[in-house]
Amino acid sequence: MTSSPISDAIGQVLGDIGPFVDFFLNSKWAKKRGQPGISDFVVGNPHEAPVPGYASTLQKWAEPQSNDWFAYQMSEPYATDAVASSLRAKLGIAFEPEHITMTTGAMAGLTVTIRCVANPGDEVIFATPPWFFYDAIITASEAVPVRVPVKPSDFDLDLDAIRQAISPRTRAIIVNSPNNPTGRIYPPETLQGLAGLLSDASAEYGRTIYLISDEAYSHILAPGAEFHSPLEFYPNSFLIYTYGKTLLTPGQRLGYIALSPAMPDIEQISFGLLATMVTSSYGFPNAVLQRGLADLEKLSIDIDHLNAKRDRMMGNLRGMGYEVTEPEGTFYLLVKSPLEDDRFFTDELAIDDVYVLPGSMFEMPGYFRISLTATTEMIERALPIFEATIAPTRDFLVTARAV
Amino acid sequence: MTSSPISDAIGQVLGDIGPFVDFFLNSKWAKKRGQPGISDFVVGNPHEAPVPGYASTLQKWAEPQSNDWFAYQMSEPYATDAVASSLRAKLGIAFEPEHITMTTGAMAGLTVTIRCVANPGDEVIFATPPWFFYDAIITASEAVPVRVPVKPSDFDLDLDAIRQAISPRTRAIIVNSPNNPTGRIYPPETLQGLAGLLSDASAEYGRTIYLISDEAYSHILAPGAEFHSPLEFYPNSFLIYTYGKTLLTPGQRLGYIALSPAMPDIEQISFGLLATMVTSSYGFPNAVLQRGLADLEKLSIDIDHLNAKRDRMMGNLRGMGYEVTEPEGTFYLLVKSPLEDDRFFTDELAIDDVYVLPGSMFEMPGYFRISLTATTEMIERALPIFEATIAPTRDFLVTARAV
Repeated sequence: MTSSPISDAIGQVLGDIGPFVDFFLNSKWAKKRGQPGISDFVVGNPHEAPVPGYASTLQKWAEPQSNDWFAYQMSEPYATDAVASSLRAKLGIAFEPEHITMTTGAMAGLTVTIRCVANPGDEVIFATPPWFFYDAIITASEAVPVRVPVKPSDFDLDLDAIRQAISPRTRAIIVNSPNNPTGRIYPPETLQGLAGLLSDASAEYGRTIYLISDEAYSHILAPGAEFHSPLEFYPNSFLIYTYGKTLLTPGQRLGYIALSPAMPDIEQISFGLLATMVTSSYGFPNAVLQRGLADLEKLSIDIDHLNAKRDRMMGNLRGMGYEVTEPEGTFYLLVKSPLEDDRFFTDELAIDDVYVLPGSMFEMPGYFRISLTATTEMIERALPIFEATIAPTRDFLVTARAV
Repeated sequence: MTSSPISDAIGQVLGDIGPFVDFFLNSKWAKKRGQPGISDFVVGNPHEAPVPGYASTLQKWAEPQSNDWFAYQMSEPYATDAVASSLRAKLGIAFEPEHITMTTGAMAGLTVTIRCVANPGDEVIFATPPWFFYDAIITASEAVPVRVPVKPSDFDLDLDAIRQAISPRTRAIIVNSPNNPTGRIYPPETLQGLAGLLSDASAEYGRTIYLISDEAYSHILAPGAEFHSPLEFYPNSFLIYTYGKTLLTPGQRLGYIALSPAMPDIEQISFGLLATMVTSSYGFPNAVLQRGLADLEKLSIDIDHLNAKRDRMMGNLRGMGYEVTEPEGTFYLLVKSPLEDDRFFTDELAIDDVYVLPGSMFEMPGYFRISLTATTEMIERALPIFEATIAPTRDFLVTARAV
């Protein structure tokens, strides 16, 4: 028995997220964030004015219409009705309010789902490069993270590698589409293939492998891009959603878990989610957000404006010689670092107060990620700095090739 | 390996909270709650108009004053400054903002603290009768609940029994004062004694035993009652607070964990709490609540009005022959059921639409609990029904004694 002040799992989490925490608390970006005049592309935080109508919606629903206006909330009908109706329209799946568990966002949705289905030692698979906290939330749940790299050619899921990674201890796989950081939307063929192999493996090992579909960015699509949910293909699926991306309000926690209506053990899982929610920080959203949900459903960040920023940034970076992956969704751009050492290159950008997320922070060394939640002014200010920073590298490469 | 759809821990939680969930979803109260004309004393939910100034405070702080108004929140200075200052004034302990972790309420505070310090199999002690969810949140954290009954004479902590219950696996003890359901405030001598025995046992076993102080009701005191926090006596203490009782807004989740500034491993524990918060539903409170916290700190339910309801109810019930424990704090009254079978007796009250919480729901069979968050009208309506329901029992007892 250890005499450490903290638990073994949290000790491991602290080790895992150490570099991220260090970057978040101690990097030059951490010291300068929020100051005027910098170009901040690091995380998906709002830098432009809040979505019109958001604050007034909060104010409207903060006005009590009954004595129990601020009473205990669980998954309340005024919220689950609106969610089920919105999901039916969007995905064409027959969701009913009882399939919906309201949560304080995708973090609660993910952690509660994992704790609901996984025993200590169970394995949870996710694709790499991942959203940086998958490993930590699996570890904190006493489960075991298992990484499967995406195909390097097109960042699609590598189904053969996933099949190889499945063991008798596999309990779940997290699928994130549209994907942070690659911007990739997994196509129907891939999701169909994944469903087939998960069904086969579940049957082989006599234990359901659940699909946890992180759909945080499902409303943030490039022009012409089409989103398909894994729930269209695999019945043992949990849909995890947050309004924090669509409304760009990550400080006002609101989201849900939607169970596939075709899930065989749906009733037991529903009760299990309720018990897990109650015993995991009671992660039900606040009364004002649940009561106002039908109104909030109608709001969104300006997707055209976002795509305009995306095109401006992508076109210019490409013109300078950067290799930029064209995203099908999310508000991120994945860029190859002109130098293999992404920390070194991004530190060069930081000298002139241009801040991006180095790929080594999200298991993709040699790349960096740009969040397009930055302002147009930040982008215009940064473009010449991106140009000046790649120039010596580009010149060197040109010279090297000539020699 | 089980093939159950849900994890073993959550399966056990579902079993444990089964009776409570059943009461909550299927009892006569569950079917009638919220309807006019009933007297609802079951849970600490608001039945009177929200605290004056609460809604307008939300509305004020929902108005964005910057582009990042709704950005990601952790434990933000505008909240932790106000908390530290309030706690310093109240407890005379030298809290600083860095000792404060903001949470979505006491549930998050408790679950995060347990997960931060306890390994699977570690034991967490609590006094019985308990708040009904202690067992479930300990079990859901893969830790082991250990019950120690309070002294039957005065409901004070039984220090000898606690010492006996401590084992090499003991990691923490939850202390809830003012206590739900007994209304008891543990006196300084008891807390001093507890601190001594926890220090001794920690030294004996070479591993810190943490004290988790659930102070949800520390602002809800009877006239003349004096509250002492265990943090005045034991350095390895976590103070868990929620605004949900003081403001009677349990649907707007806001609270904190305050570490004793004297805690020896305070830095490691602080980072551990941060890592646990991030990986446990990201239970940081919403931006509007954190930004408005200094204003919310000034608000409270009307304690005089609450105590008037308490005196009216207690005096009358005693006059009818009920044995009522006089609470030093909380908004509950603990009443001995005139019949040993508290479910039977409370079902009798329910025939006339008077709803209370039977003691068998909180490990105190033979009692029931009255929540004084009910309205004056509910109380006046209920008094003759309490009288009519005890009458045959009382008459029977009088007759039996005479014979």
